[in-house]
Amino acid sequence: MASKQMVNELKPGEKVDSYFSVNYKKPVTDYKYGFMFEFRVADKSGQMTVKYWGGQSRESVQKLHDSFEREDVVRVKGEAQEYRDQTEISVSEKNGGTVVRLPPDGYDTSQLIRAYENIPEMQAKIVELAESVHDPHLAKLLQSFFKDEEFLRSFSESPASITLHSAAVGGLLRHTLNVVELCLKVRDIHPELDRDLLVTGALLHDVGKVQSFRISSNISQTEDGNLIGHIIIGDHELVDRIAGIEGFPGGLASKLRHILLSHHGKKEWGSPVEPMFPEALAVHEADDLDAKLDNMITKREEAVTEDDWIWDPRHSRLIFLK
Amino acid sequence: MASKQMVNELKPGEKVDSYFSVNYKKPVTDYKYGFMFEFRVADKSGQMTVKYWGGQSRESVQKLHDSFEREDVVRVKGEAQEYRDQTEISVSEKNGGTVVRLPPDGYDTSQLIRAYENIPEMQAKIVELAESVHDPHLAKLLQSFFKDEEFLRSFSESPASITLHSAAVGGLLRHTLNVVELCLKVRDIHPELDRDLLVTGALLHDVGKVQSFRISSNISQTEDGNLIGHIIIGDHELVDRIAGIEGFPGGLASKLRHILLSHHGKKEWGSPVEPMFPEALAVHEADDLDAKLDNMITKREEAVTEDDWIWDPRHSRLIFLK
Amino acid sequence: MASKQMVNELKPGEKVDSYFSVNYKKPVTDYKYGFMFEFRVADKSGQMTVKYWGGQSRESVQKLHDSFEREDVVRVKGEAQEYRDQTEISVSEKNGGTVVRLPPDGYDTSQLIRAYENIPEMQAKIVELAESVHDPHLAKLLQSFFKDEEFLRSFSESPASITLHSAAVGGLLRHTLNVVELCLKVRDIHPELDRDLLVTGALLHDVGKVQSFRISSNISQTEDGNLIGHIIIGDHELVDRIAGIEGFPGGLASKLRHILLSHHGKKEWGSPVEPMFPEALAVHEADDLDAKLDNMITKREEAVTEDDWIWDPRHSRLIFLK
Amino acid sequence: MASKQMVNELKPGEKVDSYFSVNYKKPVTDYKYGFMFEFRVADKSGQMTVKYWGGQSRESVQKLHDSFEREDVVRVKGEAQEYRDQTEISVSEKNGGTVVRLPPDGYDTSQLIRAYENIPEMQAKIVELAESVHDPHLAKLLQSFFKDEEFLRSFSESPASITLHSAAVGGLLRHTLNVVELCLKVRDIHPELDRDLLVTGALLHDVGKVQSFRISSNISQTEDGNLIGHIIIGDHELVDRIAGIEGFPGGLASKLRHILLSHHGKKEWGSPVEPMFPEALAVHEADDLDAKLDNMITKREEAVTEDDWIWDPRHSRLIFLK
Amino acid sequence: MASKQMVNELKPGEKVDSYFSVNYKKPVTDYKYGFMFEFRVADKSGQMTVKYWGGQSRESVQKLHDSFEREDVVRVKGEAQEYRDQTEISVSEKNGGTVVRLPPDGYDTSQLIRAYENIPEMQAKIVELAESVHDPHLAKLLQSFFKDEEFLRSFSESPASITLHSAAVGGLLRHTLNVVELCLKVRDIHPELDRDLLVTGALLHDVGKVQSFRISSNISQTEDGNLIGHIIIGDHELVDRIAGIEGFPGGLASKLRHILLSHHGKKEWGSPVEPMFPEALAVHEADDLDAKLDNMITKREEAVTEDDWIWDPRHSRLIFLK
Amino acid sequence: MASKQMVNELKPGEKVDSYFSVNYKKPVTDYKYGFMFEFRVADKSGQMTVKYWGGQSRESVQKLHDSFEREDVVRVKGEAQEYRDQTEISVSEKNGGTVVRLPPDGYDTSQLIRAYENIPEMQAKIVELAESVHDPHLAKLLQSFFKDEEFLRSFSESPASITLHSAAVGGLLRHTLNVVELCLKVRDIHPELDRDLLVTGALLHDVGKVQSFRISSNISQTEDGNLIGHIIIGDHELVDRIAGIEGFPGGLASKLRHILLSHHGKKEWGSPVEPMFPEALAVHEADDLDAKLDNMITKREEAVTEDDWIWDPRHSRLIFLK
Repeated sequence: MASKQMVNELKPGEKVDSYFSVNYKKPVTDYKYGFMFEFRVADKSGQMTVKYWGGQSRESVQKLHDSFEREDVVRVKGEAQEYRDQTEISVSEKNGGTVVRLPPDGYDTSQLIRAYENIPEMQAKIVELAESVHDPHLAKLLQSFFKDEEFLRSFSESPASITLHSAAVGGLLRHTLNVVELCLKVRDIHPELDRDLLVTGALLHDVGKVQSFRISSNISQTEDGNLIGHIIIGDHELVDRIAGIEGFPGGLASKLRHILLSHHGKKEWGSPVEPMFPEALAVHEADDLDAKLDNMITKREEAVTEDDWIWDPRHSRLIFLK
Repeated sequence: MASKQMVNELKPGEKVDSYFSVNYKKPVTDYKYGFMFEFRVADKSGQMTVKYWGGQSRESVQKLHDSFEREDVVRVKGEAQEYRDQTEISVSEKNGGTVVRLPPDGYDTSQLIRAYENIPEMQAKIVELAESVHDPHLAKLLQSFFKDEEFLRSFSESPASITLHSAAVGGLLRHTLNVVELCLKVRDIHPELDRDLLVTGALLHDVGKVQSFRISSNISQTEDGNLIGHIIIGDHELVDRIAGIEGFPGGLASKLRHILLSHHGKKEWGSPVEPMFPEALAVHEADDLDAKLDNMITKREEAVTEDDWIWDPRHSRLIFLK
Repeated sequence: MASKQMVNELKPGEKVDSYFSVNYKKPVTDYKYGFMFEFRVADKSGQMTVKYWGGQSRESVQKLHDSFEREDVVRVKGEAQEYRDQTEISVSEKNGGTVVRLPPDGYDTSQLIRAYENIPEMQAKIVELAESVHDPHLAKLLQSFFKDEEFLRSFSESPASITLHSAAVGGLLRHTLNVVELCLKVRDIHPELDRDLLVTGALLHDVGKVQSFRISSNISQTEDGNLIGHIIIGDHELVDRIAGIEGFPGGLASKLRHILLSHHGKKEWGSPVEPMFPEALAVHEADDLDAKLDNMITKREEAVTEDDWIWDPRHSRLIFLK
Repeated sequence: MASKQMVNELKPGEKVDSYFSVNYKKPVTDYKYGFMFEFRVADKSGQMTVKYWGGQSRESVQKLHDSFEREDVVRVKGEAQEYRDQTEISVSEKNGGTVVRLPPDGYDTSQLIRAYENIPEMQAKIVELAESVHDPHLAKLLQSFFKDEEFLRSFSESPASITLHSAAVGGLLRHTLNVVELCLKVRDIHPELDRDLLVTGALLHDVGKVQSFRISSNISQTEDGNLIGHIIIGDHELVDRIAGIEGFPGGLASKLRHILLSHHGKKEWGSPVEPMFPEALAVHEADDLDAKLDNMITKREEAVTEDDWIWDPRHSRLIFLK
Repeated sequence: MASKQMVNELKPGEKVDSYFSVNYKKPVTDYKYGFMFEFRVADKSGQMTVKYWGGQSRESVQKLHDSFEREDVVRVKGEAQEYRDQTEISVSEKNGGTVVRLPPDGYDTSQLIRAYENIPEMQAKIVELAESVHDPHLAKLLQSFFKDEEFLRSFSESPASITLHSAAVGGLLRHTLNVVELCLKVRDIHPELDRDLLVTGALLHDVGKVQSFRISSNISQTEDGNLIGHIIIGDHELVDRIAGIEGFPGGLASKLRHILLSHHGKKEWGSPVEPMFPEALAVHEADDLDAKLDNMITKREEAVTEDDWIWDPRHSRLIFLK
Repeated sequence: MASKQMVNELKPGEKVDSYFSVNYKKPVTDYKYGFMFEFRVADKSGQMTVKYWGGQSRESVQKLHDSFEREDVVRVKGEAQEYRDQTEISVSEKNGGTVVRLPPDGYDTSQLIRAYENIPEMQAKIVELAESVHDPHLAKLLQSFFKDEEFLRSFSESPASITLHSAAVGGLLRHTLNVVELCLKVRDIHPELDRDLLVTGALLHDVGKVQSFRISSNISQTEDGNLIGHIIIGDHELVDRIAGIEGFPGGLASKLRHILLSHHGKKEWGSPVEPMFPEALAVHEADDLDAKLDNMITKREEAVTEDDWIWDPRHSRLIFLK
């Protein structure tokens, strides 16, 4: 297997022969000299558009088009070019360019998706925190999640979002740990909070993300991730596991569900109910702090400029780099 | 059983001897001449505060206080008085005033809670509409709700809200029918909409309200109604019934759940997701139209004034009565 | 007359020889090899930029530039080219390209502006609905509008907006019918509403749009459409016609004007007053429902993608296509 | 005619025998010892509630109730009393209290409504400013308003609002003068503005208020003031007078109407269109400045406290009095 | 010195003879039987209105009125009464009631203002945290604050707000400690943050509150607290102390000032600039978390009800007490 | 020195040999035929991108790159080209293109930065207005600013913003004069305002801008301009100068500071406190009027179109040009 060319390092004029994951594909259309189509590929360094320029036979271009799908990994031979201030890959049939779907053993997934390195340590910490809960029902509930190997594996693979830094395998694990640790510090300050409820709520607040993202050769949002949303998906996960625990008190279940449902803090941010008791408010505030800070730190780290300032369009703010 | 005195007809100075439902109770406290406590009662005409003025024995006042609870029905003997521009009932121990908890057969519930009269007709229409759905899975789902006698009874008893006009037994039935009828008219205008999906979504959009309100001798919000919210409660109802239907297509289930979850239209109005396809948007718009219009019509009907205008403080608007 | 080439079907590299309506024109400017100017054309399929590349004589380029105006129809001979991800038409003087203004009989207007096909049926329905109003003053008022051939013709030609689906001849007629039908359904549900006032308000709510759009070889907003707005223009139409009806009750006129003025529902959406009685609220809600739903259905229909989702930037939402 | 007792000077325990204007009246109702009704009166110092406590004969109380209406002036004999932290007038039939409707010559209107003293001077200034406009059409338009004695009288009587300082006869005149003067200063700074258009727009921006308020024995909002709003009423005034001037240019009329329609500056503040050229923006800004500043100055002047601060609930702000 | 009667324990009908702090005073006015005035008193349990009912001599009532001022402590002899649902103290001259200003040794301040008990421990922790900063300039700056006995005393006396729980002597110390501890936890999670800058920013973020509150016999906002605001006052404190440290780097000073100025997080919450680097964002988030959580915990603790829910009007939310 | 070529007049295909100010520079990167870098230049007519296309030696391209910095003035020899609808300057090494840093006497600054012409007259007016203040402390304060030659020079050089019209040397002087004149007119209308406080507040409201902008060969925002903001910078200027005046009353200082701090009118617009007395409100309203109107007038003047309308994206509004 040849060494991987990363999309964010391709220069206009450079020959390309490497593999990439397919994000989406557009239909075949005609152009001056025949038929062409466009698709978008990714690896762990970023995304890039590919244009396949075929000849006069619509049939053969269509056949190539149909030979691979979204989430497949393909080997692309072509040339990097600049087009409207973006670098893209041009694959010209008449110059011998090709696109070939690869079998699962034909590539190295770790080149396609980013991943945190310390996943086993993070898993161990999560399990340890789950075991620190004494309330028997909450303890059983946490076991039903984190002692379930299948769940733990999926949870550990999940990113925390599909953009930015935490958009990496292990991102959800990392974010969850941060939120639990902040909540434990909050509990130090306010010992009147119910530690077991707080820790359980923090550990489980984002479990719905596991089913909201699909990890294949790239990371994407699932259909239910859009139509139902990770908060409601998580609430069902919770209710299903609680149903399997005999004698789980109804009032406790309602409070735990409320923590999960209200963790975005405000209706306009997507929570159908807003925090109504301190443990719910603490989980929301810790989640908010970790997400916003991680976002700004990432933007600062990834900035490529000689200037002391970058503009963050999503939050309409300047970030100071000095 | 004596004739019922309605709270909204009591005049200051009038003797009171009638039964009422208990909404809430405050603890016993002392006053100049002994011990007293305050509670709030209701019947179908409105609500009123009652003050029990006891003597020097804290014990006996406490005993009376403990003899009834929220949602009990009590017979109150006392006198209506004006206090700070409100009429209230004063029960004076030394003048022979009493408060006695009544057994279930000691009163007529229809005097305590308002109810629409045409519930059987509305039930029949709902069932008929449910039967008009042809898609086999949706049809089975609707049967699992509306052919379930227990569910149909609860659904028909439920109000649509705890304030205003629709705060009456049968209110949910009535609101649901209105929303379905509006959706059918929308479907006439836009035949490209999926009739079965639309009707099913409209019929089920508010099923979560059944568990959000408790109907006893009065109407109140349940704990889960506050902590979880009727939208999420309804989504679980839906998922549970779908689980009982073999071969229910996953994509269809997601679309139906999306209609229910998005029916408040915007996140800030409590929907965790916002309408993403036309059938969901139609259910939201029909729900909104019916709720807002019913609200204004009710305010206009209940206005008691010689003036041509009333001020609606909740919506910060004038309503014209002429 | 040769067959029409539609702008949304032109491919880069394709020869162009067809007629188009002129939307606007920019001044003559110089370039490397002489003088050029740019203008924008439209037909019923969409819009496209045309660039005329002339020679060293400013005078002759200016003369061509001055030979046609906005709203004229011109025959363009040139070639379609891709420029910054957009297809545009390049007309090169030295390659024999030309732009010639056509006389009114030189083209087929139905190729330039979209139109609904069932206008006569829709007109008939509108007239029928107008005739269903019994109140003598409202009936006369509706006659003064819809029995006025000139008005009915203009009303039937008017679009409901200048973007999207309803941006077609007959669009206003269609939208008005939809709003009336929804209001009639609302009246079925709430028989306490005044049917005549409601139907009249619904029929006339958008009459100001007739003078807000100009229909020539294309559709544009008039100066008063921007400076005064269709709501206020419509209110003057109404007041003028009411003035011609003897004995029209002042109170009724005020209520009808209020329906028209408040039909956008909120001040921030452009209504100077907000609905103050149920008939006004019903017209607003029906208008809102029809506009929003039509908008989403159109977006879904016009989507060109293999994906299951499109992004609607104007409403910042995903639309699900499956 | 006895000296007037002002409502804001009545003390609990003081005998009352004076005349007041009637704002509104509530229906007759019963109380412990018979029948009573309540109404609200005003004079130029403020407003106060009156309660008439009659005897056992409903008929005679109803007769008294029906003997006067809103906007009548009545002579009230009774006693000031404190009731729920408010002073009110109690009229007790059995203690000889009475309420008698007065004929127009029975009272002094200047005791009932506040008025600015320098109205003639302000009228002269307005006329002078109107005459400073040179454009022949605008000049004729201004004459059609301010040389119309009837209009000038109504305009000069009108308040600028129904609350606060400018709620006085002459208030509209005063506010209009202030806005014109500010606009003239703006024109000094920006000579590129069209002076005639600017001055005309400023002079006429609030003409719709004349028909929005009714001045009788007190000041109230008219029905059209609520349903149509002073901005739209003013636009009709303008259009009607323009129609009477031969050859008034259409474009000029549209710009002037735009100034009037957009003078609230934003849709959410009630303007159906927002300022689109500098003269319109200037009139809006000057109107805003004068209204807000006058409001704060009035609040500061009317504050009655030993403290250095008052709370202005309408604008949720502290005002510093030192 | 007799035992203190607390205002929140006074019952209607109870004799009062105790001392209180004066919050504000209204002017003398007349009533049915002579002259009276009203003032408001407080102790650490709450606030209450006092009414002094004097006789026919305005002079003697005025003399008493002038004998004490805001922030004085007075001994009040009278009787608790219920007036409009509030308990207040009535002091009747003719029944021997009196109000006498007390000298500083005439009362126990600890009965008038609430205070945290562990102030010395909290001071020690603050000093320890200040000493943990290694950067020489930041370390000197912290010494200039916390080694200044006078400042440390004022800082330790200051509340964090004038309402709720933290409205107690030591409240600012406590809130500051909480914010520093949360920031240290954030630093554990994100070691890339500059620890010294973060800790210094957290320690100093609210130093402006020292001059925003006045602590006498009660707690009040200073004039500059309102006109300038604690954020700007704090920025001047910072700049002044930095000016006294030789060679303090300009860039470091700007970053530290930015942390302080931006700690409310958004302009609409009173920060003139918004966080532009991660340390500033972290201080804001920690401040926000501590303030909101403390607020909800306090509301829950102070709730007096048999119900499971209370309504928090300031944040328009239900709080669950179970 | 050759005549200056202005960036907004360069045509694609035109040879360029002129000097420009450097705004920012990007790092050296490779391309198909060697190494290149990009930078941005400005003169008083606008801004433009320059691309330097070097050869195979990274070293020599890097050396050229390092030979000039932001704010230097450089002589550029190359050719104007169109790239993605923008004109830019292409400097090709192999075609003899060069970029050379110029010494201060190598160019004419007045070609690089725009400046108002009547600065001396405006200075004279400002000084005259400052001298019209009678209050001795305010008069001394104004002298300390405007009799300080150094300050007056900087103040007169400062722009009022870095975009649009007032982005010119003298812009701050002009805006300040306008605000003072508007305030004087407001004082004519409301003589109860304190003239000296009002004029002083208006003269000083924007003094913080002097340190917020850097004027070199172009205009840029300083680091403190972003991190601290001109309002807070101005408040420190004020406090420092007040400290130098013996006996300046504390209350007067607080009011003046409040005017400066609150002059943006609302927290969300960047003022940490909002106007609490009329003089502060007047300065805010005058500032707002001048800024908004100047903005719209400038947009209208700079519009280049044959159309009657332009779209102002920053304020989401149409501007009418006729």
